[in-house]
Parts: sequence; C-alpha cells; structure tokens
Amino acid sequence: MTETLPITIAPIGFVENDIQKPISRRDADGDPVVKREQQKAFHRTVKKTISRLVIDPRHESLLDGIEAFSHIVVLYWPHLLPEEERAIQKVHPMGRKDIPLQGIFATRSPARPNPVLVSTVKLLGRDKNILRVIGLEAFNGSPLIDIKPFLKWDEADGTPEFPEWIRTLHDEIESSQEE
Amino acid sequence: MTETLPITIAPIGFVENDIQKPISRRDADGDPVVKREQQKAFHRTVKKTISRLVIDPRHESLLDGIEAFSHIVVLYWPHLLPEEERAIQKVHPMGRKDIPLQGIFATRSPARPNPVLVSTVKLLGRDKNILRVIGLEAFNGSPLIDIKPFLKWDEADGTPEFPEWIRTLHDEIESSQEE
Repeated sequence: MTETLPITIAPIGFVENDIQKPISRRDADGDPVVKREQQKAFHRTVKKTISRLVIDPRHESLLDGIEAFSHIVVLYWPHLLPEEERAIQKVHPMGRKDIPLQGIFATRSPARPNPVLVSTVKLLGRDKNILRVIGLEAFNGSPLIDIKPFLKWDEADGTPEFPEWIRTLHDEIESSQEE
Repeated sequence: MTETLPITIAPIGFVENDIQKPISRRDADGDPVVKREQQKAFHRTVKKTISRLVIDPRHESLLDGIEAFSHIVVLYWPHLLPEEERAIQKVHPMGRKDIPLQGIFATRSPARPNPVLVSTVKLLGRDKNILRVIGLEAFNGSPLIDIKPFLKWDEADGTPEFPEWIRTLHDEIESSQEE
C-alpha cells in the first residue's frame, strides 16, 4: 500500500508522581460495587495528583514558550502494561461486565496494539526542564513520548456524540468528583 | 530515574487521501504574503478532504463500537518528514518570521523528537476495516499508530488560554474558512 518505514521512539523524559500501581480494570472477579467505588476513588485521586514531567535536559530548550499555554497534551507510554495485553481485541470498558464488549479502538484502554496514551492536562508551571501538571493518569516512571500545546483544533468540530456507555461512565465518575 | 524499556511501534494501517505533498513551512524564502495565502489554501483543502483510514484487516474487530462516536482521535506518523528534522529545537510557527521562535514542544510542528501526530477529526463512517474521516491533515500513505474515541476528557478543563501568536494564526486560518 505504501512503503513501511521504521518508526523509532525514544523517551523524551519521565513522569514523576505518587501514582504507584494500577488498579486492575480487567479483573472480572470481585464485588462489582466495591470495584466501582475503587475506580471512583482512583479517579478522584488522579484529578488531584500533581505530576512532574522531567524532560531530558538536552531537550530543555524545546519547552521554551510552553508557559504561555494553560493546557498541554501529554503523550506517554504505559510501561507497566504487560506486553501480551497489546494483543487484546475487545474489552468491557473499565472491566464493567454491565457494559457490552467494545473493540479496543472504541475504548481508551491502555491495552492496545500501540499503547501511546494521550492526555490533556492543566499546566501549572515550568522550572527549566521540568513541567508541573495536574490530573495526569500516568503511573510514576512512565516514559514521556511527546509534549504538545493544547489548541482549539484539539476540540471536536461541532457537538461530539458518544454512545450511552460513555455517558454512564462519565456521569458516574464526574458525580464522584463532587463528593 | 527509572528503567528504560523498548518502545516498539508497528503501523496499524495507513492513510489514503488526495493530500500528496507537504507545503514547506520552514522555508524562510519567498514572499511572505504569497506563502500565507498558500497556507490558507492548504488549510481550506485539508478541512474538506475525506481520508480513508485503512486498518490492517487483522485489527478489524478492534474497531467494533467506534461507529457510536462522532469524533475520533487519530495518531499517525509523518513519513515524509526528513529524519534530521527530528533534531530541530526551535521554529518560527508555520515558518512565519513575524512570530518569535518557539521551542518545538510549544508548537504543533511535525518536526519533533518523536513525531507522533495527534488529530481530532469527524468520523463519517466505517466499512469493515476502513474508516472515513474528514479534515485530517495527514499526507497520503501516512502510517497510522492508533485510533481512539474522542471523549469529553480530551477537552481542556476550564477555559484554555493561548499565547497571542496562536490567536493570530487561528483567526487568520479560521477566517479563511469563511471565504
């Protein structure tokens, strides 16, 4: 179809924060109510967590100008994801059996063929080669792939539509923020 | 800081569209007015361009459920970018000398250490392993890295702020859409 070329990626830095271990999303066992509460608690914690994005000092000048943006898009690699999970084809989103199986590309599961995770977060500040952000759902030690400014063009054109299961998860998690 | 692990990426498919060659953004020569008009014309064309995202048939089932989303986030690789441009540290955004030099991480330049490009686009439809989207600024043949559903969480929390130069570029390009 076209020439294939090598796609080579080396981390530009690493995430430092207090999020140490994943909660199992695909674990089908256990009380679903308990599990849902654990997930809500995890999201509450993530929302409040401040992460330090420690960029390789040789890339420091590439950050110049980023302080003028309120939000950035962070690309990172889920280094704790077992390699074999990259072959998963479908999941119950967030391990919820009450939500029908979805193809991986219809979910934000970290288990995907190329697990480059993308997150829009608020930029709190910069000190030389280190950015401070809030609300990044990345584990401590995650390799950083790229940092981009958040632009108007990152928003959906028109009114985005979502399936019912997304609204359910969103409403649940957002309501938990208020508690 | 943490263990480094190999980050391995293989394309999940390729972009097919009518966008054949890049306009030079970093070319400092030439009439700036002519160049600006070329850029506007290019953006007008991109906005209207329908791309086919041809996913490797062995990943077809991973798309199940994506039709329920109006917008998707596409991760792709700029295969026409010369390798040496990944070492660029600063650019005048869109090659515009009237805009001060910015660090690469403060721009959306494709020339960056890990050029994983991220674009939110409208999903027009799916036929088996092929998605049709509108408005993707990728050249024909670009390798696809990932497809994700666009979620509310992709939007900025609160009111995003941008530097003046972003507003200038945005206003210019958006006004050209109306013409």
